[in-house]
Amino acid sequence: MTVTTRTAATLPLALEWSTDNCQVARTMAILGERATIEVLREVFNGVRRFDDMHRHSGVARQVLSNRLAMLVDEGILRRVPYRPEGARVRHEYRPTAKGLDLYPILTAMADWGARYVVGPEGAPVEMAHRGCGSRVHAVLECESGHRLDDPRDVAPVPGPGATRIS
Amino acid sequence: MTVTTRTAATLPLALEWSTDNCQVARTMAILGERATIEVLREVFNGVRRFDDMHRHSGVARQVLSNRLAMLVDEGILRRVPYRPEGARVRHEYRPTAKGLDLYPILTAMADWGARYVVGPEGAPVEMAHRGCGSRVHAVLECESGHRLDDPRDVAPVPGPGATRIS
Repeated sequence: MTVTTRTAATLPLALEWSTDNCQVARTMAILGERATIEVLREVFNGVRRFDDMHRHSGVARQVLSNRLAMLVDEGILRRVPYRPEGARVRHEYRPTAKGLDLYPILTAMADWGARYVVGPEGAPVEMAHRGCGSRVHAVLECESGHRLDDPRDVAPVPGPGATRIS
Repeated sequence: MTVTTRTAATLPLALEWSTDNCQVARTMAILGERATIEVLREVFNGVRRFDDMHRHSGVARQVLSNRLAMLVDEGILRRVPYRPEGARVRHEYRPTAKGLDLYPILTAMADWGARYVVGPEGAPVEMAHRGCGSRVHAVLECESGHRLDDPRDVAPVPGPGATRIS
């Protein structure tokens, strides 16, 4: 058994920085509910009408209604009118540019899930490149053009909006 | 106002496929709680001891304890013993390979959050390449080597584990 001790010099630097406004936590506060991800999945899969989403996802109507309203409020989805034959005008939900920009997050989740949570039958969903049909993955790349295949090469660092704990 | 109608031919194909085992929803079921992401942030930032995490994150002790146990059960974190001076052996938490592989998800969230949820002060956290110091981003790339800068070029498709709704 290896047992380590530490001195002031080895205290994690992160302890000096506030986590109050962390954008990862704020992003998760928007996305971090199972029903929200399920609604987004329906919309990104082309299922954009309330009754279709309800039937396909199994999300309860009231929850679905709340999640859709939240995603519209956040500017992630927008409401577009349509008229079923012989009925009044209804709305379907489409992703905005802000919503479409969630694709790297969803793709990274699909990649990780395919590796770690699916059974031997394989992944139920994959991302494809519309242009060539090949499978799409979220990869890490730095602004100097290096591809990071090993996640240990990534280190979180304080950004311009970081605030020190006084 | 543009109003669309649809026929059977334009029904979304996704309606034919089950969402029961979707790996994105299953990944979100593991990650999708604010406290879980906060615990992961502490660990990835090098804050790996219970008391440090509690003080730094503000997550209540019982919640922190539950989330750490869940992440160990899931194989995302592992417990490593250490001994504070003059005290009994305790444990710190380090990411496993499965945990480190969450970096593309966390990086994609940091990217999206930096663009859409932070104020004019800028992002509080950024990802850096340890090798060269440049900022790291999650980008979409297909297996034929195309870089997808426009998320509209991505389409979710049924994978090998997809099951048709009978």
